[in-house]
Amino acid sequence: MEIVPIGKIHTPFQSKSDTPIQPFRSQAVASVEVFEEYAEGLSDTEGFSHIILLYVFHRSSSYQLTVKPFLEDQPRGLFATRYPARPNQIGLSVVRLLRREENVLFTEGIDVLDGTPLLDIKPYVPDFGARDNVRIGWLEGKIATPQ
Amino acid sequence: MEIVPIGKIHTPFQSKSDTPIQPFRSQAVASVEVFEEYAEGLSDTEGFSHIILLYVFHRSSSYQLTVKPFLEDQPRGLFATRYPARPNQIGLSVVRLLRREENVLFTEGIDVLDGTPLLDIKPYVPDFGARDNVRIGWLEGKIATPQ
Repeated sequence: MEIVPIGKIHTPFQSKSDTPIQPFRSQAVASVEVFEEYAEGLSDTEGFSHIILLYVFHRSSSYQLTVKPFLEDQPRGLFATRYPARPNQIGLSVVRLLRREENVLFTEGIDVLDGTPLLDIKPYVPDFGARDNVRIGWLEGKIATPQ
Repeated sequence: MEIVPIGKIHTPFQSKSDTPIQPFRSQAVASVEVFEEYAEGLSDTEGFSHIILLYVFHRSSSYQLTVKPFLEDQPRGLFATRYPARPNQIGLSVVRLLRREENVLFTEGIDVLDGTPLLDIKPYVPDFGARDNVRIGWLEGKIATPQ
């Protein structure tokens, strides 16, 4: 299946070393530009406090099925990580929607490189994302959980 | 960019009318088959209670930028909905991981059609998904929030 960018994400991050690891750590404001031909689909997005962005990890290339992720000494299975180099290089982030100006969404809490190709926008609803009694495997004790 | 299935999701749902609207309503068990060539990447997934599945809405075809979603009388912008027919027909679900048997993950809370092509598996961590003070726009009052 062929996928096509529907827009572009503009962020302050020009290189991987600038980029926060997880979006909740980032206060950076991004502008999510949706190309004019898709802009009609943005109606009603402004009622949501958070949205999900799907995008391409456009600067990743070949992948390995076992990786040594950031924060970790041991090699781990790729699908137990958020490592960007993957068989399908698709990333997702939940971000706060600050406002919409026509075909541009201003968002907070972004963690991607400037110029990242946008694939989709979905509304964030707690039914989708929030879960109780969560275990986080090898990440236990390695990341701060905000709640 | 070309995307390639890395596996297939087997569910009890043979038609759209069978399929639950949101995964938290579903107790159905699915088996998420990862093709042998990618199976190595599943190491360490079993430590996570929940995973995120990315997949193709393979029975959707042409999209419209304004849609009349389920639960709603009014037309809404496509990107303010989870409607499956989209410019890039990529869906995502957070599901409970019950167990792994080699290259197959058994999951609960799935809402996709049998035979859905799998694109990616990512670990679910609350840092990613859980957000406080959420507004859900036109969906307010239309869906039950479990917490």
